[in-house]
Amino acid sequence: MQGREISQAVIRRLPRYYRYLGDLLENGVERISSNDLSKRMKVTASQIRQDLNNFGGFGQQGYGYNVKYLYTEIGKILGLGENHNMIIIGAGNLGQALAKYATFDRLGFVLKGLFDVNPELKDTVIRGVRVRMMDEFKEFISHNEIEIAALTIPKEMAVEVANLLAENGVHAIWNFAHTDLNLPENIIVENVHLSESLMRLSYNIGRYNEKHSRTDGSQSV
Amino acid sequence: MQGREISQAVIRRLPRYYRYLGDLLENGVERISSNDLSKRMKVTASQIRQDLNNFGGFGQQGYGYNVKYLYTEIGKILGLGENHNMIIIGAGNLGQALAKYATFDRLGFVLKGLFDVNPELKDTVIRGVRVRMMDEFKEFISHNEIEIAALTIPKEMAVEVANLLAENGVHAIWNFAHTDLNLPENIIVENVHLSESLMRLSYNIGRYNEKHSRTDGSQSV
Repeated sequence: MQGREISQAVIRRLPRYYRYLGDLLENGVERISSNDLSKRMKVTASQIRQDLNNFGGFGQQGYGYNVKYLYTEIGKILGLGENHNMIIIGAGNLGQALAKYATFDRLGFVLKGLFDVNPELKDTVIRGVRVRMMDEFKEFISHNEIEIAALTIPKEMAVEVANLLAENGVHAIWNFAHTDLNLPENIIVENVHLSESLMRLSYNIGRYNEKHSRTDGSQSV
Repeated sequence: MQGREISQAVIRRLPRYYRYLGDLLENGVERISSNDLSKRMKVTASQIRQDLNNFGGFGQQGYGYNVKYLYTEIGKILGLGENHNMIIIGAGNLGQALAKYATFDRLGFVLKGLFDVNPELKDTVIRGVRVRMMDEFKEFISHNEIEIAALTIPKEMAVEVANLLAENGVHAIWNFAHTDLNLPENIIVENVHLSESLMRLSYNIGRYNEKHSRTDGSQSV
């Protein structure tokens, strides 16, 4: 996939295409037209053609897209299929939910370790992986090539742990802690800020309630 | 908050301001200049002034922003502080993690019920709330005013359950299932697609590895 320059906007949309194409594959659909995909995804057919033309020649006029080919190619662009060794720091409910999350495997993320500071969790086995205490971290990391860490710990500990990870060669962090990590630029951080998602929901509920409680809609400034 | 028209771009940024202001409050900071906030948030001071000026007169030249006032006002705009009754459908690890998620309460989301189809979970009590089976759902919903449902169930069941929710007056869904729900337009849906987040991470790791394995960078098409 080297040398192809695809805009960030298209890249952001690729996971959704990948999800729809995967669903089609599961349902045994071999070919799909941009119009049909457009109806399912609620995106204009012209947007779909524009996006997918970036990869060159997937679609054939009158035949539609080859679902499996497109799925595979987008998967390659997204770096799926290659294996990435991962650890989870924080083996509470969220950490355990991620550890049991089957999609991980399918996307090539291989869970190698789980860490916590709670002695009650020590040696618990989750999906074949044993929970270690943080004081075993340095020893562990020196014997395992770990590329990614998911951080499912309270924000108070997150920055310190993230720095420890970066110092020990983990260069990608999937961050669920409610804080920004401020790491060196060469560390990749993907944030999942659930509280911000809740706030967007809350904001939209406010707008909804406002609209539905107004007798008529003519009071904006 | 009626009658104020704030752009969607600003709205999207508000949760992050709210988070930083909350941290400042916790640390006893009463006033902050746009420059200081700019350094912490890694956003330009002029962007901050522009965003916060939307709400009119929070900042005073030379005195900085009143942290508590700004935090409260942004909270109001985001609809926080009002209580919203919520249920969680799917009491597996992710559902339990959300149920135990303390930020919920602080943001005004009140957990009223947990539902599942797994009989082993029946009557388990999580954070004071008992897990009910889905066949109790209609009875429950007719006696409780529920505004929001978090969906932490497999995608295969998600669309059906979402329709059931919509039919029974739940008008906001926090969707963790890996599918789009295609509900009527008056239903608010906030998606958390973890697999798409993982794919973005994977894509960025690919770019990282490409950059670090190239001997020199001159082979684009």
